[in-house]
Amino acid sequence: MRLPLAGGKRPPYSSATMIEPRFTHRHLLGIQGLGPLEITTILDLADGYVAQNRSDDKRKNLLLGRTVVNLFFENSTRTRTSFELAGKRLGADVINMQTSASSVAKGETLIDTAMTLNAMHLDVLVVRHPDSGAVKLLSEKVNCAVINGGDGSHEHPTQALLDALTIRRRKGRIEGLTVAICGDVLHSRVARSNIHLLNAMGARVRLIGPRTLMPSEVTRLGVEVFHDMRKGLDDVDVVMMLRIQNERMNGRFIPSIREYFHFFGLDRDKLSRAKPDAVIMHPGPMNRGVEIDSDVADDVERSLIREQVEMGVAVRMACLDLLTRNLANRGVQ
Amino acid sequence: MRLPLAGGKRPPYSSATMIEPRFTHRHLLGIQGLGPLEITTILDLADGYVAQNRSDDKRKNLLLGRTVVNLFFENSTRTRTSFELAGKRLGADVINMQTSASSVAKGETLIDTAMTLNAMHLDVLVVRHPDSGAVKLLSEKVNCAVINGGDGSHEHPTQALLDALTIRRRKGRIEGLTVAICGDVLHSRVARSNIHLLNAMGARVRLIGPRTLMPSEVTRLGVEVFHDMRKGLDDVDVVMMLRIQNERMNGRFIPSIREYFHFFGLDRDKLSRAKPDAVIMHPGPMNRGVEIDSDVADDVERSLIREQVEMGVAVRMACLDLLTRNLANRGVQ
Amino acid sequence: MRLPLAGGKRPPYSSATMIEPRFTHRHLLGIQGLGPLEITTILDLADGYVAQNRSDDKRKNLLLGRTVVNLFFENSTRTRTSFELAGKRLGADVINMQTSASSVAKGETLIDTAMTLNAMHLDVLVVRHPDSGAVKLLSEKVNCAVINGGDGSHEHPTQALLDALTIRRRKGRIEGLTVAICGDVLHSRVARSNIHLLNAMGARVRLIGPRTLMPSEVTRLGVEVFHDMRKGLDDVDVVMMLRIQNERMNGRFIPSIREYFHFFGLDRDKLSRAKPDAVIMHPGPMNRGVEIDSDVADDVERSLIREQVEMGVAVRMACLDLLTRNLANRGVQ
Repeated sequence: MRLPLAGGKRPPYSSATMIEPRFTHRHLLGIQGLGPLEITTILDLADGYVAQNRSDDKRKNLLLGRTVVNLFFENSTRTRTSFELAGKRLGADVINMQTSASSVAKGETLIDTAMTLNAMHLDVLVVRHPDSGAVKLLSEKVNCAVINGGDGSHEHPTQALLDALTIRRRKGRIEGLTVAICGDVLHSRVARSNIHLLNAMGARVRLIGPRTLMPSEVTRLGVEVFHDMRKGLDDVDVVMMLRIQNERMNGRFIPSIREYFHFFGLDRDKLSRAKPDAVIMHPGPMNRGVEIDSDVADDVERSLIREQVEMGVAVRMACLDLLTRNLANRGVQ
Repeated sequence: MRLPLAGGKRPPYSSATMIEPRFTHRHLLGIQGLGPLEITTILDLADGYVAQNRSDDKRKNLLLGRTVVNLFFENSTRTRTSFELAGKRLGADVINMQTSASSVAKGETLIDTAMTLNAMHLDVLVVRHPDSGAVKLLSEKVNCAVINGGDGSHEHPTQALLDALTIRRRKGRIEGLTVAICGDVLHSRVARSNIHLLNAMGARVRLIGPRTLMPSEVTRLGVEVFHDMRKGLDDVDVVMMLRIQNERMNGRFIPSIREYFHFFGLDRDKLSRAKPDAVIMHPGPMNRGVEIDSDVADDVERSLIREQVEMGVAVRMACLDLLTRNLANRGVQ
Repeated sequence: MRLPLAGGKRPPYSSATMIEPRFTHRHLLGIQGLGPLEITTILDLADGYVAQNRSDDKRKNLLLGRTVVNLFFENSTRTRTSFELAGKRLGADVINMQTSASSVAKGETLIDTAMTLNAMHLDVLVVRHPDSGAVKLLSEKVNCAVINGGDGSHEHPTQALLDALTIRRRKGRIEGLTVAICGDVLHSRVARSNIHLLNAMGARVRLIGPRTLMPSEVTRLGVEVFHDMRKGLDDVDVVMMLRIQNERMNGRFIPSIREYFHFFGLDRDKLSRAKPDAVIMHPGPMNRGVEIDSDVADDVERSLIREQVEMGVAVRMACLDLLTRNLANRGVQ
C-alpha cells in the first residue's frame, strides 16, 4: 500500500522486531532532536495501522492491560478523539481528563496533577497544555511515557508526523520536496514541529505570512521566508495552510480578516503558482473563507485534508505502540 | 419472555440469519418510510437483548473492533448513556463527543466535523442535533451508518421503537390499539416518530393538546386531534405523555404552567377516562406536577416509564447490530 | 509485600473464597457500622490489587459484562478517575455521568435519575453528591450496589479505606497507633469516615483545628480534641492533613489564610513534635502553603501522599470486586 521511497536512505527490513531498536526514546515531546531514521520508524509502523483501520476489525490488543490517559488543559475534540481511538483500537484502557473538570481548578499545581496520575500507574500520558514547555516539565516527574499533544506555540509532534505520513503516501518521499507553510507561523506549534521534521527529512521549507506573524528566530530555522504568497508558492510540491485564530487576530496581528484572505488566503488563483500536482494540507479545523477557500479545500484531486485526519489515528497508534514497547524494555520504574 | 402477538402478521422464523434481509437500510434517520416488517425486525431482535441485559453477563462481543461515536450537539445524559451502554455491551469502542467541547465552537462547519469523523473510519455515528434535517445532511457525507439520536422537532426514531417494544411486551400487540399522545406535539420529535410508527403498525393515534401546541400539518398525519383531554382519553389503551419544556413555554405557547396542568396534566381523574388497563408512558425526564402527576407516574401497575428506559438500551443494541451487519454486507466503502 | 499485622486479630486464610463471607453488605455507604473484620477483608483484597496495578498487565477480567456508572453531582477528577480506572482494570464497562451534563439540570429529581439508571441494569453505581444522605436515599431505590463516592460532609468511605491501607502497609498495623486529623474537621467527610475507621480498628484519634472548624458532636466521637497543633501532634504516629477550601473559608471560619497557616499549617517545626518516624498524609488536592508546607509534603521518607493515590485505585477495585460478588450471591433482583 505504501509507495517505494525515492530517497532510498532507509535500510530494508522485514520484521517488527527490527523496528524497535530504532526509536528508543522514553517520551515523544517534540520533533526537534529526532533523526530521519527515528521519524521513518514511526511512519513505517503507522503505515501498517492505516490498513488495520480500514478493515472491519480495527482492534489489535497490543496494549491490553495498559492505561492511557488523555490530559487536556485545552479543548480539542479532534486531537483527543484521535488519541482516544488510537488507544482503544490497541486495546488499552483510555481515560479522558479535561481541565474544566480537573483539580487544577481547585488550585492544585501542574506537578501535583502529574504525580497523582503517576501514582495510578499509567503507561502513557498524552498532554495538551497552553504553555510551551509544560509538557516537558511534566515528563520529568513521571514514570510513564509522555506524548506531547500540543504545548503552547512550541511543538505538536504527532501533527507533524501525520503530515509527513500523508505526504509520503502521496508523493512517495519527503526528501527533496519543496513545502510551503503559510499563515500564522508565529503562534503555530504545528508549523514549528513541521519545520523540524521537514528539515530532518531533507525537504526544503518555505514560510509564507505577514511580517507580524513570523517568529523572530526565523533566520535560524534553515528556511526561506516570503511575505508575498504568490512568490512563495512558486513551484512548491506541498502547500500547508495554518489555522488563523480569528478571535485573537483581527486588529492585533493583521489588519482585518478580509484583507488577510486577500493577501494570504489560499485560493485557486494563488495555488496556480504551485506545481500542477501540488497538494493542499490543513491541520483543521478550517476557517473556510479566512485562510482557505472552500473551492480549494474540497478539491478532490489535490486536497489531502481528510487523509491527514485518517493518518492521525494511525500515527498515534504507532507512537503508543513504540513508547509502550520501550517501557517494557525498560522495566517498571 | 415476549408475549405472543395478537396481530399475527409476523412470519415465524427461528434463526438470526433470517432477520437480516428484512432491514437493509444503511442509516436509521427516522421512522417515516419504514414498513411494519422492518419495524418488527428491530423489535424482535431487541427482545433478545432485553434478556441479555437482565443477566449478569451483559456483554456480547458482536461489535468488537467496531467504532461507535456519539456526536451530541445537545445535552442528553439519558439518550447518550443509553447508546454508550448499548455500544459497550456489544463490545464496540465507544467515543463520546459533546458540542461544548467540539471544534464546532471554533467555527468549523457541521460537514467538516462529519468529514473529520468519517476519516477516522467509524462504523456507526449517533447524532443528536438541535436542527431538523441536520442528521440527514450529515448522513449523506459519510461512509459509516448514521443513527438519528433526535434532530430538532423532526424525528427521534429509537425513542419510537423503544416505546413500541414497551407497548408490544405489555399488550402483546400494537395493531388495533388506541394510543393518545398528549402535550407539546408541536415541538416534539418523539411525537412525530411515534405517529409514523403507530400508523405503520396499525394503531389508532389521537393527539391531545392546546391549539398552540398542535402542528399545522396535523390534518395530513392520519390522526384524530383533541383539545379536551378528557374526551381524548376516552377508552384509549395507551397514554403517552410528552415533556413540557418549562423554560420556553410559560406565556408563549401556554398561559401558565399551573393552568397547563389543570387542562393537560395527567392525573388520576383524567386517567379514569381511559380503559381500566390503559398504560402510562413518558419519554423522560419528567416534570412532575407539570405534565404528569407523581401519583400517576409512579403507579406500579400502569406506569411503564421505567420499562421504557430498559427497552431503550435493548432497542439501541438492536439498531447498532442491524446497521453494522448491513455495513458488513455492503463492504468497506 | 504486606507487612505482618501486629494486632494479630485477623484469622489466617489462604484462598479468595474465604474472603467472601466476611463482607456481605449490598452497598458501601459509609464506614460507620463496619467492623474490623469487614474493614480488614477489604484491605486484604486491595493488597492483592496493588501488586496487579504495578505490573504491565493491569487487567483482570473479573467484572467483564458488568456495568459500573460513575454518577458525580460534584466535580472530582481525582476520585472519578480512580473509580474509572478501577472498573476498567477489572474489565467492567464504565460510564461517566457528570451533573452539568445530566438531566437533573432539566428539573428531573434525584430519584428519577436513579430509577432511570436502575432500569438500564447497572451492577454498581458510584455516587458523589453535595448533600449528606443523598447517596443513602438513592441506594434505597435501586437494585444495583451503590458506593458512596462522597456525600456532603457525611462520609467518603473509600478515602478512609485507602488511608487505612496506606498506614497498614507502612506501619504494619493500625491498632494502637495515634493518628492526628488536622484542619477543617467540620466540613470534612474524609475526617468523619476516618474517625469511624480508626476507632473500629483500635487506633487512638486526635482532632486538631480551630474551634470554628470543629463539629459540635465532637464529644460523642470518642476522640481527643486539640486547638493547639503543637500539643496535638505530640508523639503521634500519623499526621492526616485535611484540605482547606479557600473559597469559603477566609473571614468566615478562619481569620485569614496566612494566619491559618501560622497556627494550623503543617511545617517542619510543628512536625518535629510528632514521633521521629511519623508519616504525613493528605487526601489531595493540596493547597501548598495553606494547610501544608511544600517542604513537608514532598518529604521522600515521611510523606505518603503519593501512595495514598496508588492505594485508592486498589481499594476501589477491592470494593467493586466484593460488591459484585455479593450481587451474584444474591441473584438478579
